[in-house]
Amino acid sequence: MYWKPEIEILPQQQLHILQAQRLQETLSRAANSPFYGQQFKQHGISAEMIKNVDDIRRLPFTTKEDLRSHFPYGFLTVPKQGAVRLHCSSGTTGNPTVIFHDNHDLSSWADLVARSLYCAGLRDTDVFQNICGYGLFTGGLGFQYGAERLGALVIPAAAGNTRRQIKLMQDFGTTAIHTIPSYLYRLYAAFQDMGLDPQHDTNLKLFVIGAEPHTDAQRRRIENLFGVKAFNSYGLSEMNGPGVAFECEYQNGLHVWEDAFLTEIIDPDTLEPVPDGEEGELVFTTLDRHAMPLLRYRTRDLTRFLPGDCPCGRTHRRLARISGRTDDMFIIKGCNVFPMQIEKVLMRFAEVGTDYIIALDTVDGNDEITVKIELQKSWFTGDLEALENLSRRIAHELRDEILVTPAIKLVEPGSLPKSEGKAIRVQDSRDPKEAL
Amino acid sequence: MYWKPEIEILPQQQLHILQAQRLQETLSRAANSPFYGQQFKQHGISAEMIKNVDDIRRLPFTTKEDLRSHFPYGFLTVPKQGAVRLHCSSGTTGNPTVIFHDNHDLSSWADLVARSLYCAGLRDTDVFQNICGYGLFTGGLGFQYGAERLGALVIPAAAGNTRRQIKLMQDFGTTAIHTIPSYLYRLYAAFQDMGLDPQHDTNLKLFVIGAEPHTDAQRRRIENLFGVKAFNSYGLSEMNGPGVAFECEYQNGLHVWEDAFLTEIIDPDTLEPVPDGEEGELVFTTLDRHAMPLLRYRTRDLTRFLPGDCPCGRTHRRLARISGRTDDMFIIKGCNVFPMQIEKVLMRFAEVGTDYIIALDTVDGNDEITVKIELQKSWFTGDLEALENLSRRIAHELRDEILVTPAIKLVEPGSLPKSEGKAIRVQDSRDPKEAL
Repeated sequence: MYWKPEIEILPQQQLHILQAQRLQETLSRAANSPFYGQQFKQHGISAEMIKNVDDIRRLPFTTKEDLRSHFPYGFLTVPKQGAVRLHCSSGTTGNPTVIFHDNHDLSSWADLVARSLYCAGLRDTDVFQNICGYGLFTGGLGFQYGAERLGALVIPAAAGNTRRQIKLMQDFGTTAIHTIPSYLYRLYAAFQDMGLDPQHDTNLKLFVIGAEPHTDAQRRRIENLFGVKAFNSYGLSEMNGPGVAFECEYQNGLHVWEDAFLTEIIDPDTLEPVPDGEEGELVFTTLDRHAMPLLRYRTRDLTRFLPGDCPCGRTHRRLARISGRTDDMFIIKGCNVFPMQIEKVLMRFAEVGTDYIIALDTVDGNDEITVKIELQKSWFTGDLEALENLSRRIAHELRDEILVTPAIKLVEPGSLPKSEGKAIRVQDSRDPKEAL
Repeated sequence: MYWKPEIEILPQQQLHILQAQRLQETLSRAANSPFYGQQFKQHGISAEMIKNVDDIRRLPFTTKEDLRSHFPYGFLTVPKQGAVRLHCSSGTTGNPTVIFHDNHDLSSWADLVARSLYCAGLRDTDVFQNICGYGLFTGGLGFQYGAERLGALVIPAAAGNTRRQIKLMQDFGTTAIHTIPSYLYRLYAAFQDMGLDPQHDTNLKLFVIGAEPHTDAQRRRIENLFGVKAFNSYGLSEMNGPGVAFECEYQNGLHVWEDAFLTEIIDPDTLEPVPDGEEGELVFTTLDRHAMPLLRYRTRDLTRFLPGDCPCGRTHRRLARISGRTDDMFIIKGCNVFPMQIEKVLMRFAEVGTDYIIALDTVDGNDEITVKIELQKSWFTGDLEALENLSRRIAHELRDEILVTPAIKLVEPGSLPKSEGKAIRVQDSRDPKEAL
């Protein structure tokens, strides 16, 4: 029934005791990092002041800006030689954010992902195809280690090459897939092109989808297309990556693993906890991370706790699907993109004028990004080959930056609509997102 | 001095005793696989007939064709559910080849890679940036697990985005890199573009290069460019991937880990062992693999044993740099490509005529691939946009197939040189390869 029953069905009261104890340990460790060491001294904080989980409110918040301004080693509790892995963001709108892991952390993370996958129904008899970027993106190695820990047969398929993905499914009888939801539409189209019906021509029975905001309606559409159950995965690199919160067989919200992540929901303006069940900003404190614990980390993700017990028996509370973010970052094809990353690339090109628009659209169920760019007058000639060549160079450099290849539309100077005051750079016309 | 001294400096005589014992165990395991089970019955082979390592000659060889014709589960000694990872080739010239690993195998592999990296000089105080494809390519996960096992701080940088690679090196003080040799030229050019000198602006001190045939002269050129020692890595996916043979600080051949791989060099025609020190085809028997042992596997790689002891003290024999292959596969930018893979893609296009040539060249130290394609008469119009569009589609589909983007040159029907008899499809004009 459960991957770690002694933890997963622990009554909330006992869970609180475990959390308080781990929070104390975490504070002791955090005190060894330059950032928290100084902060604790400044605010008179010590591990001893934690008697119960509510004492968490006596600690200051940590933000992405803190991570950036203390890049790269400000949050490390050990010398960097004590870490064995790092994951970091591209950090081109300032310093990147980086998370370091020691052996304990990697093992703990693998265990959380194994637990999550088990919770969604994966077993050691399954064949698990991990269709996502590897490397610095946490989905690849995160699910790889977790699914191996669970004992499933893992195919490290990585992203791209849809025909080959289908061949792998058929060759090895893949039963479970992890990918981003929009990819599943492309996958389905490829099945159709090949004259195949996934319901009859594969053994697929379980999808794990995450890393890309999507509605419950979209999930249902995917489930209906394939005749395969799709489970929502939530994570963020600052909290390792995948394995933070996961749906169980009842698909009624995401169990957040409270033994590993002390979870708060706050009003992003007042910074006070919102009343139970109301929407607010998700805040996490790591409870089982050694190399780089984070305290009251503000995720910028908006959600709420769902009321009531879950029939699955797990006592860890359920989060609603993420309904939005408090900042301007957008996610396209599973990649986090800040408008400034795009601007930074565009500004490298002498040919590019001052105005551009980032248009996000949903085409046949897929999210697409088009960057419309005004050229300098002198460059807007009739030389189509030169323009095409420029488009290609811009697309290439943007792809290196944001990891997604945008469509490029070069337009005449002055032809883009002007906004009053602050320029509106992002036109998000994608299908509306709805909360669960 | 050594990662596993009890094994690495074991006298050859004792190594042979260990090999014989492990070979016996391997045969017992192999007997559980459909392929070897049947072969053993047919030839009256049993584990008991192995008294010493020379008894290996009483076993038949295993070839890539055997792997293909018994795809996917013919070599598995356990039900597929007993495996936790597979790596496979793209297999578009027939069935792919696939290797399955259980937990023991992954741990053994990680240990061999850790030992190899240690042998080349990597320590747990190093920052190791792994610049290569992840996923099904064994270099990514192979080096990831191995370098983590060693205790280095691993940056899973994956391939591409050279500017970011350099930023990672600078941000985290990377001391060691694994990549393919040709990439290092591109990397150096990027350093120059950015006005940086790797000798002064980074902490680099160690390169591990492999997966792409290269000469010792090329290695020296790389070392001189960067002022960084470069060590040769040898492996193949059938023998896990990286971690089969590795250079030590003396750079005088690659120590092959004889406790894990029983190594023979044979005459590819007579199949008899070549006299000691002569060149022949490399043949391996796995000695520490549980899910999928392979016996006397013919690698098609040509090399020889180097004579004499190594001053490093390791007793495992040294192989010369691979001097060539017995089949027609070529390796470009670290990817294995069979000409038939390219033909298969080209034949999907109605526009493509009957002739094509795969030209391999070295341009500024980088290996480049150009596919010259004759079009059908009806399609060879003056419509440059249509031709450009077709080129792009072909390049895209080829890239999906061979994982490398070739340059495409569309030519008039009849304009490619014709060869008498069997068409010569590959024109390899790359800088000549020399043996060590």
